[in-house]
Amino acid sequence: MPTQDDIRAAAGRIAPHVRRTPVIRLAPAETGLDAPLTLKLEQLQVTGSFKPRGAFNRLLSARVPAAGVVAASGGNHGLAVAHAAQVLKMKAEIFVPEITPEAKRARIAATGATLTVGGTAYDQARQASEARAAETGALIVHAYDQEEVLAGQGTVGLEFEEDAPELTHVLVAAGGGGLYGGIASWYDGRIEMVIVEPDECPTLFVAGMASQPMDVPSGGIAADSLGARRVGTLAFEIMMRQGGRCVVVKDDAIRGAQRWLWDRLRIVAEPGGATALAAILSGAWAPPKGALAGVVVCGANCDPGSVAGT
Amino acid sequence: MPTQDDIRAAAGRIAPHVRRTPVIRLAPAETGLDAPLTLKLEQLQVTGSFKPRGAFNRLLSARVPAAGVVAASGGNHGLAVAHAAQVLKMKAEIFVPEITPEAKRARIAATGATLTVGGTAYDQARQASEARAAETGALIVHAYDQEEVLAGQGTVGLEFEEDAPELTHVLVAAGGGGLYGGIASWYDGRIEMVIVEPDECPTLFVAGMASQPMDVPSGGIAADSLGARRVGTLAFEIMMRQGGRCVVVKDDAIRGAQRWLWDRLRIVAEPGGATALAAILSGAWAPPKGALAGVVVCGANCDPGSVAGT
Repeated sequence: MPTQDDIRAAAGRIAPHVRRTPVIRLAPAETGLDAPLTLKLEQLQVTGSFKPRGAFNRLLSARVPAAGVVAASGGNHGLAVAHAAQVLKMKAEIFVPEITPEAKRARIAATGATLTVGGTAYDQARQASEARAAETGALIVHAYDQEEVLAGQGTVGLEFEEDAPELTHVLVAAGGGGLYGGIASWYDGRIEMVIVEPDECPTLFVAGMASQPMDVPSGGIAADSLGARRVGTLAFEIMMRQGGRCVVVKDDAIRGAQRWLWDRLRIVAEPGGATALAAILSGAWAPPKGALAGVVVCGANCDPGSVAGT
Repeated sequence: MPTQDDIRAAAGRIAPHVRRTPVIRLAPAETGLDAPLTLKLEQLQVTGSFKPRGAFNRLLSARVPAAGVVAASGGNHGLAVAHAAQVLKMKAEIFVPEITPEAKRARIAATGATLTVGGTAYDQARQASEARAAETGALIVHAYDQEEVLAGQGTVGLEFEEDAPELTHVLVAAGGGGLYGGIASWYDGRIEMVIVEPDECPTLFVAGMASQPMDVPSGGIAADSLGARRVGTLAFEIMMRQGGRCVVVKDDAIRGAQRWLWDRLRIVAEPGGATALAAILSGAWAPPKGALAGVVVCGANCDPGSVAGT
């Protein structure tokens, strides 16, 4: 698990390439909660998700071979790696499954990376990417289960604590657990982490119940960003050590959170980007008395027209 | 012209009802400029534009009669007044022209305000609203030409200076000039204001050239938010006293800025909300050497699907 020093070092390493994303505070009357709710607007990050934090940190920490880098992804991590490779003038090969939306595919291809689409879910793209890396010797940039990737995602926590030091709880969506693991490593128990997953791909929830990583089905509207088949070992260990709490939400609640963000804040978030907020708006997680909650809005790589409507 | 004390008082008065909107800084590599560019994300304000700042300040400063309040608007001011009246439990009648998009009409109607649609442009809605106020005795909340409204909009400047004290130039879109006049009153010459208008509704530009307010045509894609027929007398006087510089941009540049905000930042802005940025991205205004520019992104009340595309 990355230390605070690892995360501070990552922050320095990636600073020229990523944005410091802002927070916005919502008054109790806006949410119906007893206390203000603070959102970290990480969907405004370069490439439209938090992923370049980990991708840049991994690429800038490693000796990258001439064969370049390879990554598998539902889309956001692949886009981040492709973008980082373009900026750092490295070759990149990205593997995505067929569920990856056109908006994400087109952005990856536009970076000049080699894009391979195949398999029905993230896990098959991961297998293809590992076979390819074995063939070429390219550096694998894992979507969530590498120390450098976690340290990069941990910079979200570093910034969130600086900008909202009053928080007692931070809600974050999880698929493989990279963003959760990074932020939890930063806070290291100083606040309570609430892990939110779609009930159609509950990797951390199931692993927590079973006390071990387990394969789970991966479906539903957020599968292209949260559809890992199994939690990362790093995130799992952090969750077991810290006792992070898991909450699952239904796809309807996620869609409702997307609409709420547009209707109330003119924010576009993709399903995975709105999943953490869905836990609060749907009541799946209720802040305990005195809690000051923060939510990471973590991605916006969707058709913007998809967030409106009733 | 409001003083800094007036604007500070307005900030205190409206604080329970509006959001402190965040800023985000873009590195030179992101814009091609020589220096960072700072955006104030005022499109995240309650009701999706800066307008509730002025509306709440006017309603909270006045003795509102039982007949309530009346306002004319291309949409955003009307929505802000309707929302403020709903929150403060007052009656509201809102007049908008036929060019007001459905997205704005529906939001106004949803507040419970009485909505009247008529005339082809803002100016006709204004005339209808004044006739109605004469009939009922309701309090007129002008879209831009009242001291309290300007003081409310000036709180954008107060916040922008606190969050980005390094700025030397602030770019702001203008229709009747309420947002410009408010922010210029706050800064009072301590930075340079750059007023940006669509070339199809150049109220301040023409008034500046003529050294007097003049009627201008009001058309183009931003007419529903910047389509005043004539600059407000307050904004005009402030511009003449301070020597504010006017820049005009073409509709294509505005559309380009909307697309750029979506493509690079996953921000949705309506045409009027992207107009100030369009001046920089199109080169209509080039920052002088050493300038540190800030841009107010001031509205997002459009179909979110309209900002994507090529």
